[in-house]
Amino acid sequence: MPSAELSSWNNGPAKTAILDFVARVTSEGGPDHVPPADRIATFDNDGTLWCEQPLQVQFSFAQHRLNDMVARDPSLAERQPFKAYVEKDMAAIKAAGMRGLFEVGAAVHAGMTEEAFDRMARDWLAEAKHAGLGRLFTDLVYVPQLELVAYLQKHGFQIFIVSGGGIDLMRAFSEEVYKIPRHHVIGSSVKTRFEIQDGIGQLVKLPELNSFDDREVKPCNIGLHIGRRPILAFGNSDGDLAMLRYTKTGPGPRLALLLHHDDGTREFAYDREFRLSPLAEALDNAPQYGIDIVSMKRDWAEVFAP
Amino acid sequence: MPSAELSSWNNGPAKTAILDFVARVTSEGGPDHVPPADRIATFDNDGTLWCEQPLQVQFSFAQHRLNDMVARDPSLAERQPFKAYVEKDMAAIKAAGMRGLFEVGAAVHAGMTEEAFDRMARDWLAEAKHAGLGRLFTDLVYVPQLELVAYLQKHGFQIFIVSGGGIDLMRAFSEEVYKIPRHHVIGSSVKTRFEIQDGIGQLVKLPELNSFDDREVKPCNIGLHIGRRPILAFGNSDGDLAMLRYTKTGPGPRLALLLHHDDGTREFAYDREFRLSPLAEALDNAPQYGIDIVSMKRDWAEVFAP
Repeated sequence: MPSAELSSWNNGPAKTAILDFVARVTSEGGPDHVPPADRIATFDNDGTLWCEQPLQVQFSFAQHRLNDMVARDPSLAERQPFKAYVEKDMAAIKAAGMRGLFEVGAAVHAGMTEEAFDRMARDWLAEAKHAGLGRLFTDLVYVPQLELVAYLQKHGFQIFIVSGGGIDLMRAFSEEVYKIPRHHVIGSSVKTRFEIQDGIGQLVKLPELNSFDDREVKPCNIGLHIGRRPILAFGNSDGDLAMLRYTKTGPGPRLALLLHHDDGTREFAYDREFRLSPLAEALDNAPQYGIDIVSMKRDWAEVFAP
Repeated sequence: MPSAELSSWNNGPAKTAILDFVARVTSEGGPDHVPPADRIATFDNDGTLWCEQPLQVQFSFAQHRLNDMVARDPSLAERQPFKAYVEKDMAAIKAAGMRGLFEVGAAVHAGMTEEAFDRMARDWLAEAKHAGLGRLFTDLVYVPQLELVAYLQKHGFQIFIVSGGGIDLMRAFSEEVYKIPRHHVIGSSVKTRFEIQDGIGQLVKLPELNSFDDREVKPCNIGLHIGRRPILAFGNSDGDLAMLRYTKTGPGPRLALLLHHDDGTREFAYDREFRLSPLAEALDNAPQYGIDIVSMKRDWAEVFAP
């Protein structure tokens, strides 16, 4: 086993499972060989590729735009669900869940063209910092995951992000930060309308949900966008459980990984629920479903880049 | 200009436009250079990559499955829209249009898993022949287009199919026939439901349209699946016009191509309307929108493989 690989992963069961799996599926002529076209790997984003604590980036991004809107139309601050977000009323925000968050996002971005949204998201990501950690959100990606993505790509895997986060916000940094192309990003989305504006064909965001990419919808969107069952999937919450099971229950070699946030020193420790994303069902059922647990504390030599 | 390229294309304005465009966007340091990540090209399928005359493959495929269903439940033959298809009543079929055809397809495939559908489609494609030409449908792909797809891929383009046809039917042959991966195929789709059947996670087709990928929906689906404006698009009907305009109206070098079926000897000649796909609007407005016409008669040295 090439121990020089995945140097930010500690030796242990998770690293061994990954290295063994990749060795098996890439072994030409071996019994578990998988042709490159079938080497599809899907990763959740929030809490799997980057930090989701204490408030998801999606939250901060919607808040930012919402503040602009409220400045122009103060009456918004009196209307739900905007009111909960303006007042940072966590009980009300939690009651609306991830879907409520995404619906606020859909409302605040309606009417923008896809290209204007992309510019705004890039500008925001270039400056927006995590309140507690004082670093750019894009610096809060997990070093071991960047290494794993690159390692899998080097071994002929095609990596896709499959996340409940907004598809266009993720695409604004996926290539630079993860080296994952825009068309390999699957996420929650709003409907759009094609129209000609000043002679230019534009896609305009509508205030209507197209897909909330969470739970059982994740495998459905994998079917729509990829058209192949993944052979490897990596998640961290109950929202990823259907994707992990879809991956794991196919024929031949399969690897399903669940990140356990158990490192209160270097990141955060939470494993029953985390505000908008419950975690307990996936964690409790991992052994039964053949899902391998990755412990941040035990398995990762590094978490964030220094 | 490397005249050994695109040998199944005759010298002339269309071939020159293609070779010039590719030379400009791939010229390192040149004023029109486009980085590989932005070299996105989208192709319609029916009538652009393969023959759509006299009946689209989608039609034959739905008919095949419909016959099986009617054999089990003869009352179906008395209910519209099935009745029109069972009776091959072209006036009624035409009135329902491409969307009606796709809705029949959605109904007849409801309840199948994605994987069972894929096996059935592959079995059917291995034997199904074009009634008039007596050849397998997959032999009725256009040789100059196979050559163009390969030529563009060699020059760093990523090729996507964007078609009104069923996404899963196209994926059953796109890799073998076009060398276009499954996840680069965008088409009409039904909604699916994730469920565990006998311990295996499956995507089950529902009798409900998810997206009818035609006209203004094509650029919207390009936004959803690719997340980038193409720099080259190739179509043949009014259903492709929005995609061609979306492509052509972006900044920098752009190429939009429209295939004119004007070769009654080697293929078919039709240019005002063709049963389910009107053609006149795109053809009449091509000069105004900067769309280059490809004449099958004038520009293609070959049409089908011998």
